Amino acid sequence: MAELYEISAREAVAGVAKGDFTVEAVVRSYLDRADAVEADVGAWHHLDPDAAIATAKAVDAGPGGPMKGALIGVKDVICTADMPTTFGSKAYEGFRPPYDAACVTMARAAGAMVLGKTVSTEFAAMSPGKTKNPFNPEHTPGGSSSGSAAGVGAKLVPIALGTQTAGSTIRPAAFCGVVGYKPSYDLIDTTGTKTLAACFDTIGVIARDVRDVAFYTAHVTGKPELEPDAAPAAPTVALYRSEAWHLALPEAQEALDRAIAALAAKGVSVTEIPLMPGYDKLLDIHERMMDWGMTTGLSYERLYIPDRISPISRDMLEGRAAHASAAKFAEAEAEAIAARANISALFGDYDVILTPPAPGEAPKGLARTGDASFNRGWTALHLPCITVPAGTGPTGLPVGVQLVARKNDDARLLSAAAFLEAALAA
Amino acid sequence: MAELYEISAREAVAGVAKGDFTVEAVVRSYLDRADAVEADVGAWHHLDPDAAIATAKAVDAGPGGPMKGALIGVKDVICTADMPTTFGSKAYEGFRPPYDAACVTMARAAGAMVLGKTVSTEFAAMSPGKTKNPFNPEHTPGGSSSGSAAGVGAKLVPIALGTQTAGSTIRPAAFCGVVGYKPSYDLIDTTGTKTLAACFDTIGVIARDVRDVAFYTAHVTGKPELEPDAAPAAPTVALYRSEAWHLALPEAQEALDRAIAALAAKGVSVTEIPLMPGYDKLLDIHERMMDWGMTTGLSYERLYIPDRISPISRDMLEGRAAHASAAKFAEAEAEAIAARANISALFGDYDVILTPPAPGEAPKGLARTGDASFNRGWTALHLPCITVPAGTGPTGLPVGVQLVARKNDDARLLSAAAFLEAALAA
Repeated sequence: MAELYEISAREAVAGVAKGDFTVEAVVRSYLDRADAVEADVGAWHHLDPDAAIATAKAVDAGPGGPMKGALIGVKDVICTADMPTTFGSKAYEGFRPPYDAACVTMARAAGAMVLGKTVSTEFAAMSPGKTKNPFNPEHTPGGSSSGSAAGVGAKLVPIALGTQTAGSTIRPAAFCGVVGYKPSYDLIDTTGTKTLAACFDTIGVIARDVRDVAFYTAHVTGKPELEPDAAPAAPTVALYRSEAWHLALPEAQEALDRAIAALAAKGVSVTEIPLMPGYDKLLDIHERMMDWGMTTGLSYERLYIPDRISPISRDMLEGRAAHASAAKFAEAEAEAIAARANISALFGDYDVILTPPAPGEAPKGLARTGDASFNRGWTALHLPCITVPAGTGPTGLPVGVQLVARKNDDARLLSAAAFLEAALAA
Repeated sequence: MAELYEISAREAVAGVAKGDFTVEAVVRSYLDRADAVEADVGAWHHLDPDAAIATAKAVDAGPGGPMKGALIGVKDVICTADMPTTFGSKAYEGFRPPYDAACVTMARAAGAMVLGKTVSTEFAAMSPGKTKNPFNPEHTPGGSSSGSAAGVGAKLVPIALGTQTAGSTIRPAAFCGVVGYKPSYDLIDTTGTKTLAACFDTIGVIARDVRDVAFYTAHVTGKPELEPDAAPAAPTVALYRSEAWHLALPEAQEALDRAIAALAAKGVSVTEIPLMPGYDKLLDIHERMMDWGMTTGLSYERLYIPDRISPISRDMLEGRAAHASAAKFAEAEAEAIAARANISALFGDYDVILTPPAPGEAPKGLARTGDASFNRGWTALHLPCITVPAGTGPTGLPVGVQLVARKNDDARLLSAAAFLEAALAA
């Protein structure tokens, strides 16, 4: 039998429900895994083995729920009442909020257990943490949900929560060879999460397969239709290279080619659609809105404790504040709203769009977390996105492909992703 | 000379800038005022006279800024690093967050000083605090920004911050005879504020006159155009009785009549416009979105600490959770987005809409905070709203009139409100 850390969260839930093993056994397996690989990966911001075993015993003894047996890693910008929450910053060392974030509460109430807190870049922005790419420690895991993506990639936890304001879930998931899902804006409540730019902030879900991210999301939102059918229907798929295509590396094209070939083998032909008029402005719209969102959202850190945050964050916040304004935000937001209202012109009759999640493999070096140009436009549009692993690039690191759907069409997105995942595995 | 607690925040700022008096003197005047009336009103959740004087001395000695001399009361659901923040709930007694909310930081950075924390209903919902209406202690001050509205009405503080998710700023301000302003959704960053339903939550600003609410908002958002001209242009005004008109008491009509007559005397004729097709659904749209927002946003309190919150909040949260869902939220949100996109059909060529802020005077009794039916539709539309005092009702309590403008047309709204305020005073 496989080690328990090898199986999916759904399989762990089924095994616990059948009495094949306990939640405690699952936790112990992941703790052993941490002993073996955590020192090389650095995914955990906080992992307390004794407390985790005690919690597991309590969950085993309790009434449980449909997620009993599922373990979750929670990004350090998401509040937990029983674990430290430092927002990735030395400025908040020792803080323990008196509440759980909504995305944690809803999972715990369904029987899931939080195994630990995963590393975030500072305030989910650019200053990196200690985490390394699990496939090559000289390469970035991506960010800002670096610990969640690397932790899932290294099998330190089956499901991990991230956030996305630009590309902070999709990009690191692609870099770490796992599935990353940024739901429609507003689908998962962000209450109790450190704000980066509230106009975009979305809880992201990272797991080893599409069905585990759907499993978490379905239970936390009470939307069972988010879980794909056993044999998902064939989606209609449009290829959209996006305005950032000039940044794409050869392996991005090759991953798209593999996805297109896998879909074709299942009878789905992918049609390329032209660039949308006006979408060349989306990155700038996103930038202007994020400028003001961070200027006010992180104003306390910028203005009152600048000497306690990292120089990278300080410089970044000061730079954005220097040219951000509420007026520019309002202008950009009006443009974003107009683009969102016109989304049917993009999708036409297609269910989902196929597009790169990142320029290519995870770049070498740990000082930067990579480019979010393949993410920011979709984020500005509030659309649901998911990245699925699609092979490796020239240095053997993972490369993904991204699917995007209409707002609140998350069930169709997850179904299409499950179809694509199966096609790629065939 | 008037007592310093009698003058506006702008006048206090001007006096401090000229060296006529110190910030400490302003604070001492408000502390004396608290000694005289706070016991009857109960506006303050936290007021520490020694700490306030120490802070005032520090502000006097510091470099200041354009708000130096302005004092602010901060609703207890808004985080402050140097004062307790309990979200209006015994469950959070003793909590002091390690950061200020954005709306506090931006004001402090401009030189303003937080005098104390004002009472909120529990979680800015329905379970009332200790606050009484400053005009009659047997009547509600309204809610949820009860301490902020009553505190400004009782001249315990010149400017106070509230929040609005349904009618939590406009309604209490109208009940307490002061100006209440709910900006366009997203104009003032809600970071660091306890979420009630994030899809609607907006920072509200309460003061004794329109120009003080504009003064705060202009400096906190960096939008000087929000401050009305010395002689604001005459606005074009449409009367919209709204779908809640059947709830209006005679004094609501009388207040509208006074506003219409005052505007007519200044050459502005008010035209009644018909009810908008579909707006009869707005209250239901708001309700369904707020149901789910509160179900997830307050899930920790509902599921993990129900015995530490009030029975009123507990019953309310359980009731909403019983029939709320993400699917219903998404449906309702799509309808709200469509209505927002069609807002020009409502306003036509008019600058602002004139409509009641509440059914009438503050109701008798302290167990309930009054009806928000004249607020929830505008909140669902994300529109900026302001209530201006317009005389009194049959029992001598204040009655207001509300102006509403297009989203992000806050400068026009505040200008029109300053025009109306002056017309009513003439």
